[in-house]
Amino acid sequence: MSIFNSIFSPRAVAVIGASDNPRKLGYYCLASLINGGFRGEVYPVNPSLGSIMGLKSYPSITSIPVDIDLALVVVPSSIVPKVLEECVSKNVKGVVVITAGFREAELKDGVYLQGVIRSIADRAGVKIIGPNTFGIVNLDVGLNASFTPELSKLKKGNISLIGQSGGVCHLVAYMSTIYGLGFSKIVGLGNRCNVDFADIIDYLKDDANTRVIAIHVEGVDDARRLMEAAGQASRIKPIVAYKTGRSSIADKASKTHTGSLAGNYQLYEAAFRQVGVLAVRDVEDFFDAMKALSICPIPKGNNVAIITGQAGLGIIAADACYDYGLNLAKLSEETYSTILKLLPPLSIRENPIDMGPSWSDLEKCRSIVESVISDESIHALTLCFTYTSASSNIVLELASVLKNWASIKPVTACIPAPYGYWIKEREILESHGVATYPTPSRAVKALSFLVTYRKLKAQTISKR
Amino acid sequence: MSIFNSIFSPRAVAVIGASDNPRKLGYYCLASLINGGFRGEVYPVNPSLGSIMGLKSYPSITSIPVDIDLALVVVPSSIVPKVLEECVSKNVKGVVVITAGFREAELKDGVYLQGVIRSIADRAGVKIIGPNTFGIVNLDVGLNASFTPELSKLKKGNISLIGQSGGVCHLVAYMSTIYGLGFSKIVGLGNRCNVDFADIIDYLKDDANTRVIAIHVEGVDDARRLMEAAGQASRIKPIVAYKTGRSSIADKASKTHTGSLAGNYQLYEAAFRQVGVLAVRDVEDFFDAMKALSICPIPKGNNVAIITGQAGLGIIAADACYDYGLNLAKLSEETYSTILKLLPPLSIRENPIDMGPSWSDLEKCRSIVESVISDESIHALTLCFTYTSASSNIVLELASVLKNWASIKPVTACIPAPYGYWIKEREILESHGVATYPTPSRAVKALSFLVTYRKLKAQTISKR
Repeated sequence: MSIFNSIFSPRAVAVIGASDNPRKLGYYCLASLINGGFRGEVYPVNPSLGSIMGLKSYPSITSIPVDIDLALVVVPSSIVPKVLEECVSKNVKGVVVITAGFREAELKDGVYLQGVIRSIADRAGVKIIGPNTFGIVNLDVGLNASFTPELSKLKKGNISLIGQSGGVCHLVAYMSTIYGLGFSKIVGLGNRCNVDFADIIDYLKDDANTRVIAIHVEGVDDARRLMEAAGQASRIKPIVAYKTGRSSIADKASKTHTGSLAGNYQLYEAAFRQVGVLAVRDVEDFFDAMKALSICPIPKGNNVAIITGQAGLGIIAADACYDYGLNLAKLSEETYSTILKLLPPLSIRENPIDMGPSWSDLEKCRSIVESVISDESIHALTLCFTYTSASSNIVLELASVLKNWASIKPVTACIPAPYGYWIKEREILESHGVATYPTPSRAVKALSFLVTYRKLKAQTISKR
Repeated sequence: MSIFNSIFSPRAVAVIGASDNPRKLGYYCLASLINGGFRGEVYPVNPSLGSIMGLKSYPSITSIPVDIDLALVVVPSSIVPKVLEECVSKNVKGVVVITAGFREAELKDGVYLQGVIRSIADRAGVKIIGPNTFGIVNLDVGLNASFTPELSKLKKGNISLIGQSGGVCHLVAYMSTIYGLGFSKIVGLGNRCNVDFADIIDYLKDDANTRVIAIHVEGVDDARRLMEAAGQASRIKPIVAYKTGRSSIADKASKTHTGSLAGNYQLYEAAFRQVGVLAVRDVEDFFDAMKALSICPIPKGNNVAIITGQAGLGIIAADACYDYGLNLAKLSEETYSTILKLLPPLSIRENPIDMGPSWSDLEKCRSIVESVISDESIHALTLCFTYTSASSNIVLELASVLKNWASIKPVTACIPAPYGYWIKEREILESHGVATYPTPSRAVKALSFLVTYRKLKAQTISKR
């Protein structure tokens, strides 16, 4: 069994450097573990305090009377080696080192210190996540081993995110609370002391709760190892990669951030493609692609239908098909004649199909969607419908039709509504396999990621 | 005084086709006017009802005992000519025709009917907004003359939006409730019977409450007239234009939507540029550009500084500078040495500047921002900071520094937070002139719109 099972599903966790002072990260690490729904045991370690947040505090990890699987370390960098020796003697499996000031720092000391902790860990077969990380989260077991208690609020899902930057992991995680997306695990790699992308990808490849692996890469020392691991995993499940640091100046910044050169972007992108990994260029694309891969099936081709409640949104979606190389498909004769029967000659009755004039006839809207999605010449569908009070019940109606189809053909949707509206509707739509996006263009672009992924897989398989 | 003053700030409004049936648009039109905070008088017209929503209902507009400035028409299309004749005899100034089934329809009748109502209106000097529109909104006076009561919830601001598509207007309006943006007026042009873009642009050009004019164009019959009006107005205030229907198939859809060909996109874009209008290619860009123009000053150049709380976000922002042609500026010697004094050698101390290691020292963070924004070689700033419980108070601290600068140099920000968090903080930041965006890339791209606008103005002025 992988050592990472103990790290991501520990029975007992120690927080070394736990604090009762809200100005210290040790306070938030403990709060994350206690309040995040984790059902394992939590042990604060702080020699100056008797108890913290109602839990007995221990002077050191070695004084805890039970076995510890995972230790969170939030002490000053100079003490980390000593603390790590204690973790080794306590026989912990993994250590998350939140503390910064290692290889990423300009000080020579940092590089030296990272070498020290690495050799301590390697000798004992202990795995270090970090240093210089916000931590790890495993929503499957309610584990929030990070300095951000709010990460416990994330929706449980089937995406596992490995991020080199804590900021980017937080950005994506927070986006998910606004746009809807569920995670299994989130891992902040930080300086990648002796655990790198390849190790976590290897582990997630066989993790039953992970359907999609999403990786944010600034730069690695051993790109070949990353690509080999990604190539192995991508045979089993989709991987989407977002590589930042494309310009030379951003490259330099990456070096100072997590201690490695970003390297040539084009080489990364080509290598990802070669091993069947979908590479994206912006964080919004990263989010949108992982969402599509998480929820939707892969389309059999690039013939897209657009059904809209407001012609203007359909035109935006049609523009997006053009921009992202999708084919705004011709409806079959049969579908077209059905549409002609269902819709009055008041608006667009070809693809993009405008249901606008029939907004109040829900049965008719259902029939339109049904006839289009069942059309064999259509491989994927984007549905657009803006909220109005008069039509507020349409999303649930259409969701009940789409649930029979969205596992067969990918369906994305843009259902804009005022803040706080259509929240439940969107959740139901997504639970039926329809991925929603804030704009028609992003809903269509998401389909284009699936089409690109399909081509990528076809190429990769044919090469094998 | 412009006839549009009476239309956008009417003393009395009639709703012809008002209804007490929530399955009819006439119900929502009346609800919008009654519940939207409008301080003028509202008169329902419906011959079959004695009263609606507590208001006496009149059999026809001519039976209303007071003068009516604006009439909303939501009756079947065949009755619209008769109703319009009554409006003329009542001496109304403007009519918003919500009813569809005119020029946009495939039926020959529609074209004919539109000709009929146009000639009735033209003869009497009455202005028709629509037909086939959701209506108009003027948040300055709480007027919501539309079928969407939720539009009354929009924030009052300085942007006026003219949209050819109601769907796009709704999309942008709903985006504003999520991402923060204030409107003065929103106008759904629909079929542009005898009121076109040029008329509204002319009016808004001199409207004191409108700082930015945003137009969504599908296609017009008289592009020259639009460009002339836009050229006149763009000398006085910024105009941002989003032209949809770029592909031939989307073009065709536009024709069926609001009755006009989309035309060649490149010609539109070139013409907009020539008359000093900022053209954008996606609805997100449209939103982001109008927000930047609404809140920020125009930068004196394209030297951008990035200050971040998490290096990973700074690297995304740096990539975006590269993508959108902005210069990630070199800090002056003085600023650089200040930063070296303020920040420990733990992270990036050049541009992009990572405040991460000093997150808990608010005074230090203030000083960093102050020294960078006051650096004369810096023309614009993007600030990134993700929410963590430990640093939740930083936004307000930085807002108090930025308020002295954001009216002099444009500042954009990306402050990602979980759903429902940092709402007040974002509002305060924006009230101090800092435009916020969901991702670092969009925050930087927004600056690039301002830089493009500046170049556009310089070219347009030099040509005059």
